[in-house]
Amino acid sequence: MTLSKKLLLTAAAIAVPQVGLAQDAEAAAVTAEMVWIMNTLLFLIGGFLVFFMACGFAMLEGGLVRSKNVTMQMTKNVALFSLATIAYWAFGYNLMYPLGTWSIEGVLSGVFGVGILEAVGIDLAGADDSSYASTASDFFFQLMFCAATASIVSGALAERIKLWPFLIFVVILTGIIYPLQASWKWGGGFLDEMGFLDFAGSTVVHSVGGWAALAGALILGPRIGKYKDGRVNPMPGSNLALATLGMFILWLGWFGFNGGSQLAMGSVGDIADVGRIFANTNAAAAGGAVVALILTQVLYKKPDLTMILNGALAGLVSITAEPLTPTLGMATLIGGIGGVIVVFAVPMLDKLKIDDVVGAIPVHLCAGIWGTIAVVLTNGDASLGTQLYSIIVVGVFAFVTSGVVWFILKATMGIRVSEEAEINGLDMAELGMDAYPEFSKS
Amino acid sequence: MTLSKKLLLTAAAIAVPQVGLAQDAEAAAVTAEMVWIMNTLLFLIGGFLVFFMACGFAMLEGGLVRSKNVTMQMTKNVALFSLATIAYWAFGYNLMYPLGTWSIEGVLSGVFGVGILEAVGIDLAGADDSSYASTASDFFFQLMFCAATASIVSGALAERIKLWPFLIFVVILTGIIYPLQASWKWGGGFLDEMGFLDFAGSTVVHSVGGWAALAGALILGPRIGKYKDGRVNPMPGSNLALATLGMFILWLGWFGFNGGSQLAMGSVGDIADVGRIFANTNAAAAGGAVVALILTQVLYKKPDLTMILNGALAGLVSITAEPLTPTLGMATLIGGIGGVIVVFAVPMLDKLKIDDVVGAIPVHLCAGIWGTIAVVLTNGDASLGTQLYSIIVVGVFAFVTSGVVWFILKATMGIRVSEEAEINGLDMAELGMDAYPEFSKS
Amino acid sequence: MTLSKKLLLTAAAIAVPQVGLAQDAEAAAVTAEMVWIMNTLLFLIGGFLVFFMACGFAMLEGGLVRSKNVTMQMTKNVALFSLATIAYWAFGYNLMYPLGTWSIEGVLSGVFGVGILEAVGIDLAGADDSSYASTASDFFFQLMFCAATASIVSGALAERIKLWPFLIFVVILTGIIYPLQASWKWGGGFLDEMGFLDFAGSTVVHSVGGWAALAGALILGPRIGKYKDGRVNPMPGSNLALATLGMFILWLGWFGFNGGSQLAMGSVGDIADVGRIFANTNAAAAGGAVVALILTQVLYKKPDLTMILNGALAGLVSITAEPLTPTLGMATLIGGIGGVIVVFAVPMLDKLKIDDVVGAIPVHLCAGIWGTIAVVLTNGDASLGTQLYSIIVVGVFAFVTSGVVWFILKATMGIRVSEEAEINGLDMAELGMDAYPEFSKS
Repeated sequence: MTLSKKLLLTAAAIAVPQVGLAQDAEAAAVTAEMVWIMNTLLFLIGGFLVFFMACGFAMLEGGLVRSKNVTMQMTKNVALFSLATIAYWAFGYNLMYPLGTWSIEGVLSGVFGVGILEAVGIDLAGADDSSYASTASDFFFQLMFCAATASIVSGALAERIKLWPFLIFVVILTGIIYPLQASWKWGGGFLDEMGFLDFAGSTVVHSVGGWAALAGALILGPRIGKYKDGRVNPMPGSNLALATLGMFILWLGWFGFNGGSQLAMGSVGDIADVGRIFANTNAAAAGGAVVALILTQVLYKKPDLTMILNGALAGLVSITAEPLTPTLGMATLIGGIGGVIVVFAVPMLDKLKIDDVVGAIPVHLCAGIWGTIAVVLTNGDASLGTQLYSIIVVGVFAFVTSGVVWFILKATMGIRVSEEAEINGLDMAELGMDAYPEFSKS
Repeated sequence: MTLSKKLLLTAAAIAVPQVGLAQDAEAAAVTAEMVWIMNTLLFLIGGFLVFFMACGFAMLEGGLVRSKNVTMQMTKNVALFSLATIAYWAFGYNLMYPLGTWSIEGVLSGVFGVGILEAVGIDLAGADDSSYASTASDFFFQLMFCAATASIVSGALAERIKLWPFLIFVVILTGIIYPLQASWKWGGGFLDEMGFLDFAGSTVVHSVGGWAALAGALILGPRIGKYKDGRVNPMPGSNLALATLGMFILWLGWFGFNGGSQLAMGSVGDIADVGRIFANTNAAAAGGAVVALILTQVLYKKPDLTMILNGALAGLVSITAEPLTPTLGMATLIGGIGGVIVVFAVPMLDKLKIDDVVGAIPVHLCAGIWGTIAVVLTNGDASLGTQLYSIIVVGVFAFVTSGVVWFILKATMGIRVSEEAEINGLDMAELGMDAYPEFSKS
Repeated sequence: MTLSKKLLLTAAAIAVPQVGLAQDAEAAAVTAEMVWIMNTLLFLIGGFLVFFMACGFAMLEGGLVRSKNVTMQMTKNVALFSLATIAYWAFGYNLMYPLGTWSIEGVLSGVFGVGILEAVGIDLAGADDSSYASTASDFFFQLMFCAATASIVSGALAERIKLWPFLIFVVILTGIIYPLQASWKWGGGFLDEMGFLDFAGSTVVHSVGGWAALAGALILGPRIGKYKDGRVNPMPGSNLALATLGMFILWLGWFGFNGGSQLAMGSVGDIADVGRIFANTNAAAAGGAVVALILTQVLYKKPDLTMILNGALAGLVSITAEPLTPTLGMATLIGGIGGVIVVFAVPMLDKLKIDDVVGAIPVHLCAGIWGTIAVVLTNGDASLGTQLYSIIVVGVFAFVTSGVVWFILKATMGIRVSEEAEINGLDMAELGMDAYPEFSKS
């Protein structure tokens, strides 16, 4: 308001000319310590938001399975997140980032020694990028992405897969498969060097989860009675309020997922970008939901809530590869096309007799591919060829390795519950505990 | 602990004498860039908290309607938030803030051009208030308030309104009605110039939602069988755990709603104020809940959980117009009076045969009016006359415009489902999908 | 990337050599105002996360009680948090912190005067630690810990305790018992002077809640039919999806609980520590869940979801006394032992015919004791003798004072509902409102 303040602000505006889209804008007047603090804070806030997505997946899946399988779905989701935490710590993080070379000594020192947080990754004490952010906060943030990959799988294979083979798969997925391919892009590997762009992981996270789910669904086969006499037998979810809760929690968590992937908020340029990402992420989700709402009204004469929920999620997946460069309108369109994909991919999978209980493959794989391609629409640095090449390379790797693991698990311990257990529900058969013991079933 | 540190701190204390209630305290030693970063961060954190209120409303309403209408209530809540996102982007934001003049070119450029985020609002590149915060973060934050207005309406009109007319109303409310009247206060319009005080929107958000709901409830009429032979027929909510979850999520989101409305946290004075606002917001909710607990015990001999939930929410609405200047005790009292209002307004509405399914009108309209008046108790800058004048002006505008829209919708496409659909439930009739298909109904 | 940037960063690294574990690292280049702002922000973010734990407790408990007592459990949780807010404001905060001496004038001035936030605690205007953080944000944060103590009690005593005696106990617990003993450690009292270490409250919060619950459970007695003819009659929770939701929300809130207890993030060292705490807190929860999963598989041949949920929570409680110094592997182990404790303590309590509906005593008391002892494993400043002494002193105090209050309540107004009310459910008997009125009971 005073003259002196105005002058100060003008000076600031001159000093920081690059607002938005300026990922490495230099903010001379912010001290290196404050940059470090703010970057770390972004990882922490982003990390707890993405953590909450583990809850979102659990609720979404718990609402979309039948009540006789809800306890199992809850068990799987809590266990998969917990095992992912351990696997990513013991193997994944070191595999993913080239600075740390994985070794059995490293793992043991993590348990008994000075700790893995000192031994690997970005560190203020000496390393070149010492001014960036705390290693622990980075680990915390990256772990959540790894765990999300496993959450995607659990929904698709629900209602028929055995608990323990599924959990063994989760350990391999989060300890090895995910980190290896993630290192190709986010660890500075060959896809990154080629110019592959995947801001927050439409391919690295979502399609990988989707490929692993697809391989599992093919090897596991559909639920009993799902496809019978050429007809698709609907098996409606037991609790759509719970599923809606899950969707909203995922939408909330996505602000951390995409916004946190800016990886920095210690400059005016960086946090302005985080702001854009929040607004675009929200717009894409809205676009996906609205398109699914309208399309199901037009196609089926009645809006379909599960399609609308998956439409919003597909919108979110679609914008994840590039949440920064689109305008709000473009983000809405990109998300909206995600909604179109879901509405058509869900019945298409059914035609192929691929039984995906919650729609994880349409949402995470199909919309993930679309989102990765859509980068070329708004980011001038993207090459369609490189995007397609990376989609294929990552897809083949994730699908084949997952398929091999599923196949070995099937051949050795078996991955499917008995017919009787499936019909009676996994809750009583495998866990002896009903999720809603007092609500009589119709 | 060392002498040098102590001296440093003393110096700091001298340099920043104004703590709290000092909205424009000068914090000379915080750089302009850091102020910009912190303000933007407040919008982002506040924004995601208020976003989550969309989930809170959905759960609250889903718990308070009967199970035959839960899928519809979920559908409405997801769809209304998504449509509000689009309508506020396309029309609302530019209507609300005078810097951007709405034009069809602006909308189109938002889709195909450099993007609406550059075109309007506060921008670092050139504008006077360039040092304030990122436009995208401000848009993100403001959008959430707009969407909350629509969420309020959906609860009141539940269990009998058709989906599509409701959604058309939402687009008009969030694209035009809300932004227009919000511009009178928050866009620097005539109410702001008169000295109207409404910190986070007891009037601008909550009473506007309440007026729109009241107009709708009057034109729509009560549910079949609600008022019969002079008696009020209770229609208890189907899931009070879900309703309680919704209330807690709303309480959480309100820290962003009120705290974020400080609009700045880049100085000691500003963030001290945010701290006060958090503490006062919490105290008012507690006051409302405790008063409703005690009052329902005294009046009905049994505490009423739905009244307690609405009491907490009424406490939150009551403190929203002025969460900063009250002491904690005063905040508790202001919220407590909100609780009194709810306990008496709910049966009063029933006497008037106005059927408000979730108590949105007592909570948001009645307590919103009270909160706007209560500003004069603690803020010396407030004038009772101006507060009352603004309540009336906004109320007349919101009630009349909403009423006209509802009337037109009723006259053209009809706003009410058929009698048969209402009795059988909107879920099967309009959506063909039951929210709890396996839990048999008593 | 440029030379000048690299030089700048190297300089920064030299200026801030102490990263992590350096609670009072001097960050010379961060201004005193920014330190104040960041510390306050930590209290606000940590505070809203811990607030959400009130919701987590409500959902966990609501899912673990039978459906006939869900409305009551929701009522208790909303009411206890609201009453804790008022009691901690009126009495607790001033009792807990030695700077403010409690007086009736202080309370009255809080209501009618300049406000309790100016009168007590850390304040920028004059006090020695003026550069620390905002008093209101500290109050907000501390209040949430106090309320958590009461939430612990409500689960253990569910399904048979009367509403009002329980709420009177809550007021005494949060207004007097909790703050008094908390002052011994966190108010700088004699346990703190002895060198007792309890970072975020394994003893101060969790075991105190557990002792209060144990005293209550002993005086109240088990539910009718729980222990009959020498057998334990299982009374399964009505909604395991809701219980899982509650667990996830608690896990989320714990990042604020432990991370916020660093009490500072205005320096590189402090926020690096917050990052470690986040990662360790997450690891401990994962360890507890995985151990409970494996142990129940081994012991009972079937994994037990309620044990897994409580295992995760026990892991969280176990790491709460020292979330900073362990390595990730050690944190996983410490949490894992918490999981072991739960799996064995739950049936042990049943053998002693102590009826704890949700497992609050194993989780919060048993794992709280373990966590307090475990500090000596990783923190060289801890003395086993002092830790044990403090556990005993706090335990005796909490157990005896709680027991006296429960005894007086029992002798005067009675604490247990009638046999008929217990069998029919507290919801209809005490509140006249069913939580799930439409879902018929099996």
